[in-house]
Amino acid sequence: MRIFAHEVKGHEGSTISVSGWVHRIRELGQVNFILLRDRSGIVQLVMDEKPGFTQESVITAFGTVRKNGKAPGGFELQVSNIQVLAEAAPDLPIPVNQDPGNLSLDAILDHRIISLRIPKIQNIFKLQAGIVQYFGDHMRGEDFIEIKSSKLIGSGTEGGTGLFTVEYFDRKVFLAQSPQFYKQAMVASGMERVFEIGAAYRAEKHETPRHLNEYISLDVEMGFIDSEHDLMDLEMRILTSIFNRVREEQQDVLRLFDASVPEESALDNTPRISHDEGKEIISKRTGKRVFEINPEGERVLCDWAMEEYGVELIFVHSFPRKKRPFYTYPEGQKTKSFDLMFRGLEITTGGKRINEYDMLLENLPKFGLTEEGLSDYCTIFKYGCPPHGGFAIGLERLTQKILGLANVKEASLFPRDRRRVRP
Amino acid sequence: MRIFAHEVKGHEGSTISVSGWVHRIRELGQVNFILLRDRSGIVQLVMDEKPGFTQESVITAFGTVRKNGKAPGGFELQVSNIQVLAEAAPDLPIPVNQDPGNLSLDAILDHRIISLRIPKIQNIFKLQAGIVQYFGDHMRGEDFIEIKSSKLIGSGTEGGTGLFTVEYFDRKVFLAQSPQFYKQAMVASGMERVFEIGAAYRAEKHETPRHLNEYISLDVEMGFIDSEHDLMDLEMRILTSIFNRVREEQQDVLRLFDASVPEESALDNTPRISHDEGKEIISKRTGKRVFEINPEGERVLCDWAMEEYGVELIFVHSFPRKKRPFYTYPEGQKTKSFDLMFRGLEITTGGKRINEYDMLLENLPKFGLTEEGLSDYCTIFKYGCPPHGGFAIGLERLTQKILGLANVKEASLFPRDRRRVRP
Repeated sequence: MRIFAHEVKGHEGSTISVSGWVHRIRELGQVNFILLRDRSGIVQLVMDEKPGFTQESVITAFGTVRKNGKAPGGFELQVSNIQVLAEAAPDLPIPVNQDPGNLSLDAILDHRIISLRIPKIQNIFKLQAGIVQYFGDHMRGEDFIEIKSSKLIGSGTEGGTGLFTVEYFDRKVFLAQSPQFYKQAMVASGMERVFEIGAAYRAEKHETPRHLNEYISLDVEMGFIDSEHDLMDLEMRILTSIFNRVREEQQDVLRLFDASVPEESALDNTPRISHDEGKEIISKRTGKRVFEINPEGERVLCDWAMEEYGVELIFVHSFPRKKRPFYTYPEGQKTKSFDLMFRGLEITTGGKRINEYDMLLENLPKFGLTEEGLSDYCTIFKYGCPPHGGFAIGLERLTQKILGLANVKEASLFPRDRRRVRP
Repeated sequence: MRIFAHEVKGHEGSTISVSGWVHRIRELGQVNFILLRDRSGIVQLVMDEKPGFTQESVITAFGTVRKNGKAPGGFELQVSNIQVLAEAAPDLPIPVNQDPGNLSLDAILDHRIISLRIPKIQNIFKLQAGIVQYFGDHMRGEDFIEIKSSKLIGSGTEGGTGLFTVEYFDRKVFLAQSPQFYKQAMVASGMERVFEIGAAYRAEKHETPRHLNEYISLDVEMGFIDSEHDLMDLEMRILTSIFNRVREEQQDVLRLFDASVPEESALDNTPRISHDEGKEIISKRTGKRVFEINPEGERVLCDWAMEEYGVELIFVHSFPRKKRPFYTYPEGQKTKSFDLMFRGLEITTGGKRINEYDMLLENLPKFGLTEEGLSDYCTIFKYGCPPHGGFAIGLERLTQKILGLANVKEASLFPRDRRRVRP
């Protein structure tokens, strides 16, 4: 019967077996110590004979559990027998049993198959799996239905730039840059409240610590809203729920990264400022003239929110019309849209959408679009669509900011950028 | 305060409001009846004046709740005021308030934006959202971690055929036909147990009721298994969990489709036969010579399982080597692999994988592959990978078979086939 590393302490005096990867070998001659890693943690094995296997080999060790205050967890296994399930080659390209802080990002990503074995790195994705779970749980708790929309779209509806082309039999299609139109279609279909956890694709040639060409978008769309503030309220409930569960259920991961999540009491103070107010604050604090809120501005606004409201998040709303897509609900020369910044980084874009067919038709030409070119989309509104809106949270950015990672690529299992399409 | 259709009965005598889509209008002159549809169901509105709006318009109705045994749910709203939130054009391309049984599949899919409003059709996707939820819940309950792997792969590793090409900046990449290599990489990384809910792409020119070119794959991979029977055991636990929750939580949907799910007591009898035994059974029952188990054969085997074991599922294992991919664990001329058929349709392919580096290297040339061409994949095994295996369940096929839908495309929100890339 296999026992996990973290359960060994409950079996003092018993004969058990453990299975996992050989994390570290320390040969002292008379006695040899092995750290064995499994999905629950690390346990120390003590062997009299010389270990005849390499680091990272997969083994099953049989033996007796005994107390040892110096062993990880306070107990160790005195080995009676070893079975090697898979021998590892001795030329590991990067070290697995050290802090990855000494490795470059390129080394970590070029050797992704191996770097994911490093416990600290693997824990990023345990946290990320938690975020996905907590998000879904919260949405279902508010009666949202999960949808799975197609990522292959026949026309580049949000604008032809920034789309990857797919050779689809005898024609070309595109990879969707968001499930925007599909989630709106589902709200209008009568589902009213939908969410999607899926891939989004951006064919943009950026090379920054905040961009990925393929990422996971946590998408939300909600019918019968009064204004975009209903959406900001909803997002705060979602994030509160995610942060609370991360704090409760992912303590180990937070500790590894010396990280924490905002407290509920602070979140309640999250300020909501207009785009114009945002520019003014940035201008005052930097002494520069501000034309738009760029990454530096996002950091300034988060600093301001922390100083003024004691919270690491800030909503910016009322973006100018020309800075938002055609489907954004206008309000004079502004829009009923918003961004949310967290720890200096935009993690959400959202807003109320145009739901009136006539207003949509009037708006299209201003963006160089036609009803013919967007016929499926326009059908959504031609036959009755309630007031609605939504937003999307970037999963990797949220993960990055919770753990304080320097680059968003660290928060993607197999990141894709302009140069990187493997492993 | 908005009240939902299904809550109206609890508000007799009160003045409330309801919001939704105008499902049906019956004008009798003195008195007019409206059926209003919201995400919870349908409620009857009674108006004295002539309704000044079209079917499918989105309205909010204010009024008083009163008892009426003839109204849906036994209560109706005597309307005092109506607010039209969005007017629908009067030329609906397909009827929304009738049984979709009279519509062709092409009509349903060409007008997908509208056909998703048909309550019976929309309910397919409420059930599907449930399956996704129950699957995730079950996997987490067995300590599996959810992963999100890239769908853009640098080389066509499972064989160059059947892959869609993507123009990725100045090179070509492919859409992944499964997360196979990534889930194996994550098992070998030490996560041991992973699952993924994600899109899979097959560039195959089939035109059948059982194929989609883009579908959602419920993927599972598990380390430290003894044999492929551990995987079949796991899959039965997953399906039992899904079927039980569908039966408990999706009664309304099952009733609409006059459908049911297998009982736990029957599932426990699910037979496991070898590929050779399967061919023999098909041959005996059809009187034909059988070279492989084709769709007709899958139906015959499910009939046989029902007659012999009283269950609508059957595992077929020990497929010949040449019928399985290179990574399948061999056993003489057979493999430790399996399919699961449910109600006449294959819904799962799975098996134990080769985890020994030497065995893998020996196997590659037999499939025309090289270590150089698969270097990232081979790295997984070069540095220690435990015995493992996994499988994938096709979400749309499972949905289709639970509800008895004639075509798998009915179980995809926005299906993609050779001709269809919209809406």
